[in-house]
Amino acid sequence: MKKYSTYLATMLGSFLILSGCGNPDGKANSNGALASSNAEKVYVAPGEQDEFYAFMSGGYSGNLTVYGLPSGRMFKEIPVFSQFPTSGYGYSEETKPMLETSFGFVPWDDSHHPDISQTKGELDGRWIFINGNNTPRIARISLSTFETEEIIELPNSAGNHSSSFVTENTEYVVAGTRFSVPIPQRDMPINEYKGNFKGSLSFISVDPNNGHMDLKFQILMPGFNYDLSHPGRDKSHGWFFFTTYNTEEANSLLEVNASQNDKDFIAAINWKKIEEYVNNGGGTKMPANYAHNVYNESTHMATSTMKKEVLTVDPLKVPGAVYFLPTPKSPHGVDIDPTGEFIIGNGKLSADLTVHSFDRMIAAIEAKKFDGEAYGIPILKFDDVLAGTVKSGGLGPLHTEFDGKGNAYTTFFISSEVVKWNLETWEVIDRKPTFYSVGHLMIPGGNSRKPFGKYVVAMNKITKDRYLPTGPELEHSAQLYDITGDKMELLYDFPTHGEPHYAAGIPADLLAPKSKKIYRLDENEHPYAVTSPAEAKVVRDGNEVHVYMSMIRSHFTPDNIEGIKVGDKVYFHITNHEQDFDVPHGFAMIGQNTSELLVMPGQTKSSVWEPKEPGVWPFYCTDFCSALHQEMQGYVRVSPANSDVPLKFSLGE
Amino acid sequence: MKKYSTYLATMLGSFLILSGCGNPDGKANSNGALASSNAEKVYVAPGEQDEFYAFMSGGYSGNLTVYGLPSGRMFKEIPVFSQFPTSGYGYSEETKPMLETSFGFVPWDDSHHPDISQTKGELDGRWIFINGNNTPRIARISLSTFETEEIIELPNSAGNHSSSFVTENTEYVVAGTRFSVPIPQRDMPINEYKGNFKGSLSFISVDPNNGHMDLKFQILMPGFNYDLSHPGRDKSHGWFFFTTYNTEEANSLLEVNASQNDKDFIAAINWKKIEEYVNNGGGTKMPANYAHNVYNESTHMATSTMKKEVLTVDPLKVPGAVYFLPTPKSPHGVDIDPTGEFIIGNGKLSADLTVHSFDRMIAAIEAKKFDGEAYGIPILKFDDVLAGTVKSGGLGPLHTEFDGKGNAYTTFFISSEVVKWNLETWEVIDRKPTFYSVGHLMIPGGNSRKPFGKYVVAMNKITKDRYLPTGPELEHSAQLYDITGDKMELLYDFPTHGEPHYAAGIPADLLAPKSKKIYRLDENEHPYAVTSPAEAKVVRDGNEVHVYMSMIRSHFTPDNIEGIKVGDKVYFHITNHEQDFDVPHGFAMIGQNTSELLVMPGQTKSSVWEPKEPGVWPFYCTDFCSALHQEMQGYVRVSPANSDVPLKFSLGE
Repeated sequence: MKKYSTYLATMLGSFLILSGCGNPDGKANSNGALASSNAEKVYVAPGEQDEFYAFMSGGYSGNLTVYGLPSGRMFKEIPVFSQFPTSGYGYSEETKPMLETSFGFVPWDDSHHPDISQTKGELDGRWIFINGNNTPRIARISLSTFETEEIIELPNSAGNHSSSFVTENTEYVVAGTRFSVPIPQRDMPINEYKGNFKGSLSFISVDPNNGHMDLKFQILMPGFNYDLSHPGRDKSHGWFFFTTYNTEEANSLLEVNASQNDKDFIAAINWKKIEEYVNNGGGTKMPANYAHNVYNESTHMATSTMKKEVLTVDPLKVPGAVYFLPTPKSPHGVDIDPTGEFIIGNGKLSADLTVHSFDRMIAAIEAKKFDGEAYGIPILKFDDVLAGTVKSGGLGPLHTEFDGKGNAYTTFFISSEVVKWNLETWEVIDRKPTFYSVGHLMIPGGNSRKPFGKYVVAMNKITKDRYLPTGPELEHSAQLYDITGDKMELLYDFPTHGEPHYAAGIPADLLAPKSKKIYRLDENEHPYAVTSPAEAKVVRDGNEVHVYMSMIRSHFTPDNIEGIKVGDKVYFHITNHEQDFDVPHGFAMIGQNTSELLVMPGQTKSSVWEPKEPGVWPFYCTDFCSALHQEMQGYVRVSPANSDVPLKFSLGE
Repeated sequence: MKKYSTYLATMLGSFLILSGCGNPDGKANSNGALASSNAEKVYVAPGEQDEFYAFMSGGYSGNLTVYGLPSGRMFKEIPVFSQFPTSGYGYSEETKPMLETSFGFVPWDDSHHPDISQTKGELDGRWIFINGNNTPRIARISLSTFETEEIIELPNSAGNHSSSFVTENTEYVVAGTRFSVPIPQRDMPINEYKGNFKGSLSFISVDPNNGHMDLKFQILMPGFNYDLSHPGRDKSHGWFFFTTYNTEEANSLLEVNASQNDKDFIAAINWKKIEEYVNNGGGTKMPANYAHNVYNESTHMATSTMKKEVLTVDPLKVPGAVYFLPTPKSPHGVDIDPTGEFIIGNGKLSADLTVHSFDRMIAAIEAKKFDGEAYGIPILKFDDVLAGTVKSGGLGPLHTEFDGKGNAYTTFFISSEVVKWNLETWEVIDRKPTFYSVGHLMIPGGNSRKPFGKYVVAMNKITKDRYLPTGPELEHSAQLYDITGDKMELLYDFPTHGEPHYAAGIPADLLAPKSKKIYRLDENEHPYAVTSPAEAKVVRDGNEVHVYMSMIRSHFTPDNIEGIKVGDKVYFHITNHEQDFDVPHGFAMIGQNTSELLVMPGQTKSSVWEPKEPGVWPFYCTDFCSALHQEMQGYVRVSPANSDVPLKFSLGE
């Protein structure tokens, strides 16, 4: 990043050694010297670029945020599951269909776990997927336009938490229900949960050409809570692993009643076997309503289709496809190392980490050494699948990532630390405190065969005094550690927007060159686009009025419109005629009951306005676009409903 | 901030001098050495704090964002004029009234110019005000809770741009219309604009005890565009200054037709004289509908009231109250130096800056030396009020701020630079490029008698290649300069959320100590609050069901509810019983057609849910609150409309 930073660091290092003012914790101290070394490591000078993208889930913002590493700067908030007044997502006519569900229009969700598409187990940077936890959905976002292109709803699901992770050639993006529910949904007493409610694990196929998603099948599982999941890789490719908790099947006071069992399970799913089963006609078609929403980059419009059927699979009908691995205790994350051998159960109420062996699991399955069954699904013996236990000394392990150099990094929520340990020896190598109460952590490519083990980002759940206070409500906080040495080194704290539950990182080189700059006007297929300002027009169709409007520095065409009446439904369809990078224009109409439109070069967006009162009402460009931006405005004359003022609009000279 | 940074900087400085690798532009170069010095200046080590708060308008996000300086980290996004799915602002029953207007519910606005309350011309850090540009509104935000407490709509206004700036004891927060419109609004041909449309300047009084706003009077002005404004201070306290453009009164093709006149005006308003006039019964009451929305911190609820009348003032009836100062050319910002003497017109189509003298203006008024009038308002002679002209060498001046040491800093949009010049000599001292096309700039306290001249932040309108690319849509970008020396030094680039049009900065010491940490549960007066989990209940009232729910780690009470029917309107009123700092809980119900609720300790929020289908539907906590957060969940059983399942809910045990 900075050619001489090594030189300078060496120079500074000598100074530090001479003056003896190093600080192994990486925290600032009274001499501030090591802090300055860390300053260099996270500083990206004006005109230079970060090394990595970090895509952080927004959690309860419903969105996906894009950060740079090592600077910790937020480059964009991509609206996914929530209305976003900034750009008009979820308010514009084109994007409203993206938030349609079987429940109707749902303007919010809780986005949790982003995962970047892979080829041969390595990040390929085509798309990023993310789950909506509340009203179960999976979204696909383009890593060329950085816009949400597709959302698919998941029926038979509730609390879509063990999602969205991809198999190593992005054959599937996989999702699992956190809450079990009656399947199909029906009125029944809640206390009849046990034995009657079910969980579903959804396998959504991804078209390798265009990324389009299709809900290929759902596995109907016992009524546990399915918390997190990860794919097998390399030798374990073809398997998928899900943690469970509440194997007690409690329906009330879960904080007590779902913590009774010493061990819950990791469910191991041989999805290749199930895929073969359904490809051969297996599975049961079940009526189900779920939305499938697709955004078309050429028309700039989304459409929502309601699907009516889903293919479900009873695991008991596919012998050899599903097994349970006993795992202490209410395991949260399940993480697979880059070789595919180690299946790490982060038992959140346990002090130790349980590491299962894929090879031993296969051997135990082949030897049919079971320890009973749960609802007909074979339970493997704990000792037969265990690879080892990490005596971490921490409390509340949640998640583990990998550096590609044989080390694993596990977060501990209760003892508030990241612990580095070796994947061969199970020995703890280093531990560093987090401020405070870390949840997920992320190493770029950490969920792939090829991690980029330079930094780890800890995503902390409690912020308190890390930043200047901002009243009772605070942003969450991330911490960046350098992991190039034996010991982790805390470099920086940076606040995060929403509540990031997980992040996916990728080297900048893999994405930046193919980032789209503009939409080509000559490829715009929006039905209400105009290709030149001269084609702008206003067309009345009963009480509906369609304004075909152009915007180009520094003018709207038309900028004066008359003949609009109270009671009309006025659609403004606005095409941005710029073809230069980073020249958006915005459109806002006084008193509109929707948001603005932020329109990128070459794009068309539409907004509806229902004028309530006669008058002359202004609109204007909301994005400071040129020296004459303040002059980029216009007026609409609204006459009473019974008026005979004719339709009239200005096209300029 | 870092005690030894000076020492280290000196050491580094010596190194730089010896090796001759300094770079006066502050940009990284091949040796990276100066960059590392700048790295130290912006680095805030883990556990340390920023020196300044910077409150940046969100522009088309409708919000206000809080940053730290020098780090450039965003600490919070405060929802103001837009729905905010993250916290439920504008979706929760308590906050929906905040977005009511005379046009109905308006879920978005375009927030432009924040200003911090003042006492004796100095920042007092009690409140911050910001304008909604699109559907004219002014908001007041508490700097204790960092929440929006009040929004007042402005009638007779359109494009509320020359807002919101406070007088030096926060007697008034002042707003001005950008677009002139028919007053009162009525159906008329747009091309009859000239001579018929009017502009309004609004003076909103602020109660010194609680900040409550009241629209005291509006001055009805000629139909120009009123672009920006600033208060007089110290000796010019009692006056307010507004820039105008489109004095041509064009209604179409403004980018050409509003740029014809060589000079437009700065309007000088003697508001003390007008205040005296209205206090003595002057002015005309006019029917007008406008919303006044107030959030009550004890009940945690907002109420919206529709006002019916506004007091308008015809400036011709108050001799000596309003004058026009001719100013080249389409001036954008008008900025008053800390002494109150200099009135700087930033003529955006001019190369030079025009500086008027307050003393000369008063002398000219007393001598009655006028150069005609415009719609009856006296025009002062340009040469009589001019203090000097700054031959800047730049193009497109927009805004000027001050360092309190006799220097001014002006942004130039077209030549893309910040120019430092001396307020006595009018000489240019330094100029630095901005990347790219700077709009506003901000020095903490720059709009007061006492600026804190350590940093200037340039808010740039074009981002292009400053960060890793994120598709066609990019965040805007700010740049931080050190202004402690003779020459400005570019330290850092940081992206900004939304489109900041202006910012208000304040030393951390003045705010941080009084930032509220929790809401006290024993002060909660929400009508649906419960003071202990044992008081939780579910009450049916016809088709309305009210759930009085508590949340405390890690449990909802009740967590099982039965007897809800399709067709019911279910209100969840959720009280967070935590009393520790930074322990929010969230509440989300599957398929809700509103957002989540993020509830702070001691607070109550409500959400409405209308179940469509029978079934057993889950809800859960959306904020990772404890090791047993995943267990914080519950179920609602929904029966068919004609069901006789009785109301039932769990209270634990």
